[in-house]
Amino acid sequence: MIHQQTLTVPSRGRGTIEITAEVEQIVAASGVRTGLCNVFIRHTSASLIVCENADPSVRQDLERFAARLAPDGDPLFRHTLEGPDDMPAHVRSILTQTALTIPVVDGSPALGTWQGVFVWEHRTQPHRRLVVVTVQGDA
Amino acid sequence: MIHQQTLTVPSRGRGTIEITAEVEQIVAASGVRTGLCNVFIRHTSASLIVCENADPSVRQDLERFAARLAPDGDPLFRHTLEGPDDMPAHVRSILTQTALTIPVVDGSPALGTWQGVFVWEHRTQPHRRLVVVTVQGDA
Amino acid sequence: MIHQQTLTVPSRGRGTIEITAEVEQIVAASGVRTGLCNVFIRHTSASLIVCENADPSVRQDLERFAARLAPDGDPLFRHTLEGPDDMPAHVRSILTQTALTIPVVDGSPALGTWQGVFVWEHRTQPHRRLVVVTVQGDA
Repeated sequence: MIHQQTLTVPSRGRGTIEITAEVEQIVAASGVRTGLCNVFIRHTSASLIVCENADPSVRQDLERFAARLAPDGDPLFRHTLEGPDDMPAHVRSILTQTALTIPVVDGSPALGTWQGVFVWEHRTQPHRRLVVVTVQGDA
Repeated sequence: MIHQQTLTVPSRGRGTIEITAEVEQIVAASGVRTGLCNVFIRHTSASLIVCENADPSVRQDLERFAARLAPDGDPLFRHTLEGPDDMPAHVRSILTQTALTIPVVDGSPALGTWQGVFVWEHRTQPHRRLVVVTVQGDA
Repeated sequence: MIHQQTLTVPSRGRGTIEITAEVEQIVAASGVRTGLCNVFIRHTSASLIVCENADPSVRQDLERFAARLAPDGDPLFRHTLEGPDDMPAHVRSILTQTALTIPVVDGSPALGTWQGVFVWEHRTQPHRRLVVVTVQGDA
């Protein structure tokens, strides 16, 4: 059986937004007990990560790391028409995930104790991000 | 239902090659309307990315970024027998994707407006790269 | 058909552990001939990579690269309560894979000649890592 649903995730500019509960609800609604849950973000300047969800300082440090690796306004980049944060956003997207496939065990995504699923907005302005969740498996 | 097909993608050395149309054709041929499409590259010095496909300067900037992060001939590396671009190619592969799973919605991969699927060749010499596409779902 | 199994992978601290044979055994046991094999690690400070498995110097160079990119004790990081290797471990996890989906062709994972599947332990202390393998497809 297959169940598919699109989430709209509003961002307030650069930062992470946890969507673990939304993904868990879609898996529960699907009726799938054993299978796979695919999460896919339909954008190239926002991405997905599975990250420690206990201490927010982890995601703050990830922002600091990404800003050091590919700073806004980096003179390396020539694709600058859409602003100093556009090309760094594409780099961050490329280095993290556009698609994630998580096992479904006993009707739930089999995330570890400290794992959460996050949308990572890489642009400085707010956006509405579309995330497609597909659950495939047996009841 | 499951449909599986291998693409041979010739590269002309380092650079990106869009395979979105080929992936879309395989999904169409599969007859799957709702499900998942997995794309897998059988190499460790070429990889897959989902990237903005409108302006080629984005991929040129990604090359420049990768060359700064892990330059050819980087003295850090000891695995140099196969040439100065070999270990940088493995690093680029590790930091991007070997496998991508994209949802199939209404018989097509549900890519966003600006998303394309690319093989990224990381070696400086031309290669023939094998990409396995698997489509799984319901008609 | 769906087959699901959890591997326990003990690490001896930072380094890579090949699990290709274990994944191949689970695919063989599943009876699936054509489909997908998902590998998922339930942690945020260890990750998965598909890497060249012929010459161990490739993985040693990856360690050297990761240590340059996000060194232990990096003054950039504020999430330091769990030790100087904790935040670098999260960064390494984010930049590599938590989930991998590999095509199953003729009853085996369709890895290329030089591809191996590895758990990459990023903490300096030994851990027991849980990896869920899900095989979905047709006999």
